Amino acid sequence: MNNHKITGVFSAAATPLNADGSPDIGLFTEHCQRLLAEGCHGVALLGTTGEANSFSSSERRTILEAALKAGVPADKLLPGTGVVAIAETVELTRHAISLGVTKVVMLPPFYYKGVSDDGLLAAYSQILEGVGDNRLQVILYHIPQVSGIPLSVPLIGRLIEAFPDTVVGIKESAGDFNNMQAIIAAYPGFSVLAGADPLLLPLLKAGGAGCITATSNLVAGSLRTVYDKVHNAEQTAAVDQAQARINAYRTLSNSYVQIPTIKAMVGLKTGNAAWTRTRAPLMPISDADYAGLSEAYAKLP
Amino acid sequence: MNNHKITGVFSAAATPLNADGSPDIGLFTEHCQRLLAEGCHGVALLGTTGEANSFSSSERRTILEAALKAGVPADKLLPGTGVVAIAETVELTRHAISLGVTKVVMLPPFYYKGVSDDGLLAAYSQILEGVGDNRLQVILYHIPQVSGIPLSVPLIGRLIEAFPDTVVGIKESAGDFNNMQAIIAAYPGFSVLAGADPLLLPLLKAGGAGCITATSNLVAGSLRTVYDKVHNAEQTAAVDQAQARINAYRTLSNSYVQIPTIKAMVGLKTGNAAWTRTRAPLMPISDADYAGLSEAYAKLP
Repeated sequence: MNNHKITGVFSAAATPLNADGSPDIGLFTEHCQRLLAEGCHGVALLGTTGEANSFSSSERRTILEAALKAGVPADKLLPGTGVVAIAETVELTRHAISLGVTKVVMLPPFYYKGVSDDGLLAAYSQILEGVGDNRLQVILYHIPQVSGIPLSVPLIGRLIEAFPDTVVGIKESAGDFNNMQAIIAAYPGFSVLAGADPLLLPLLKAGGAGCITATSNLVAGSLRTVYDKVHNAEQTAAVDQAQARINAYRTLSNSYVQIPTIKAMVGLKTGNAAWTRTRAPLMPISDADYAGLSEAYAKLP
Repeated sequence: MNNHKITGVFSAAATPLNADGSPDIGLFTEHCQRLLAEGCHGVALLGTTGEANSFSSSERRTILEAALKAGVPADKLLPGTGVVAIAETVELTRHAISLGVTKVVMLPPFYYKGVSDDGLLAAYSQILEGVGDNRLQVILYHIPQVSGIPLSVPLIGRLIEAFPDTVVGIKESAGDFNNMQAIIAAYPGFSVLAGADPLLLPLLKAGGAGCITATSNLVAGSLRTVYDKVHNAEQTAAVDQAQARINAYRTLSNSYVQIPTIKAMVGLKTGNAAWTRTRAPLMPISDADYAGLSEAYAKLP
C-alpha cells in the first residue's frame, strides 16, 4: 500500500445557477451532500467543471461558506483557489484556511503562456509563502489543454522539495497516463489524482491516489466501487463493470461540449432542468443536443 | 481619410516594480509622462506588456488612480479592464469610467478555450450591459497566442452591430496582417490597431487606425513619425527610416523573452536598473542575457 497524504474519490462539482446567473446556493449544497452520500470522499468545488473562474472572488467565498454552513464538513471540501494574480490566490487560500478548509486544488497563474519552470516555481513559492500556514495541503492542477500551463515533472519535484509538507498531490487532467506514471515513479508518496474518469482504474493499479473528476457528478457510487475494490481479486468483475459504467457516462458527456453537458446530465439525473444553466463564455447545450442527450441518457447503464 | 473613433499611437506601457514587487508608482507615472512627451497619443496601461493580470484588482485600481493623480489626462489613458470573470471586468470598467477614463482595452474571458462565438458574444454583451454607460468606448483585444481566445471576424461584426457606439476598435496582437485587412474591409470606420510594431506602417497604408505596442516604451517618437507622415509623399524616406528604427528595437526585444526584455531596455534607456524587475510567473532576463542585451542596445540606431 502507499502513504498518500490525500487519497480517494473527489468530485469536481458543478455549480448550479439561478435564472439571473447567480450561484444557486440551495441546489449546490444539496448537490454536495448527495455527492458525499453517494460515496465521494470529498468535494473539489470551484474547479474547472465548477466554472470557478467565471465567478468573482466574492462569489467564490460565498459558495465555499455556504457549503460549510449547510453542514458539509471542512475536511471534505477541496476548493480551487488558484487564479491569475498571485495576491488573489493567496487571499482565496487564506480565506479557505480561515474556515478550517486546509486542502485546496491550485492552478498556476495562467495568463502568460510558455513561461519557464523557474517562473512557475517562483509563482507557487510566493503563493505558499504568502499564505504562510503549515496546515495547508496543496494539490497542484495540471490541465494544460485549458490553462495553457503544463506543470513539468521536474517542476513538480522542485515544488515537493521546497514545500514537502504542503505540496502533497497533483490533479492530472491532461489525461496522459504516461505522465501520471512518470510522476508516481519520480515521487513516491506524492498523490497523483486522475482528472479523467476512464483512467481511475488503471491509475489506482499503477499506484495512483484516486481521482478528481467531472463524471463523479453523475456516478460517484461507481467511482467509489472502483476505488474500494481495485485491489480485491474476488471483485474484478464488479470493478470492471463499475469502470465501464463510468466510461459510458463520460463518453456521452464528451459527445457534446463537456461542462454544459455534465450540468444537463445532473439535471436529467435529479429532474431539475435549472441545472442546464451555465455562465458565459460557456453556453447551455442547444435544444437539439439536449433532446439527443436526453434520449441517450435514458439508455445509460 | 477615415472616420476612426480611436486613432493614434498608444503605448502598451510596462509597469515598473519596487524591490518588494509592488508597483513603483512614482517611476510608472514618470514613464507615462515621458511616453506622452515623446509623442504617444495615449497610454494603454495595464495590458499584457504591463503585466496587468499579475496584479490584483485593487492594485490595478491604484495604478490607474495614480496616473490620474500625477496629472496624466483621463482621455489619454486606455487601461486594460478585461479579466477572467465577467463581474470583475464590469467592476474594473466601471471604476475607470468613474474616474473619467472612458476608453478601455478589453480581453475576453480567457480561462476556457475553444468557446463558441455565441459564448463570447454573450460574455461581452453581459459585460457591456453590466457597465451600462454610453460614454464607454471599447477596444477589443485579440491576442490568441497569450489569451488562447481568438476573436473571429464574424464575432467582431456581431459585437459592432449590437453595440455600435461602444465597440469601436480592436487591438490585433496576433500580428496577422491578413486578419487586419479582413477586419478593415468588413467594418469601415472600425479602428484596427496593430499590436505588433513592424506592422504599423503597412497597416496605416491599408486603412488601419494606429497601434498599441510594446516597443513604444522605447521609441514612441519614431512610431509617431510613421503615424504623422505616412500619407506625406515627400516624407517617405523619413517614415521608412523611423519604421526601420522601430523594427530594430523590436527585433532585439524579441531576441529574449519579450516583456522582461522590454522592461530591461527601458532600464537601459533611462539609466534605472529597477526596471528589470518582473512579477512571477515572468522572470527578469538572466545576467548573461542582460549583458548581451546591453551590448546590443548600445548599438541600436
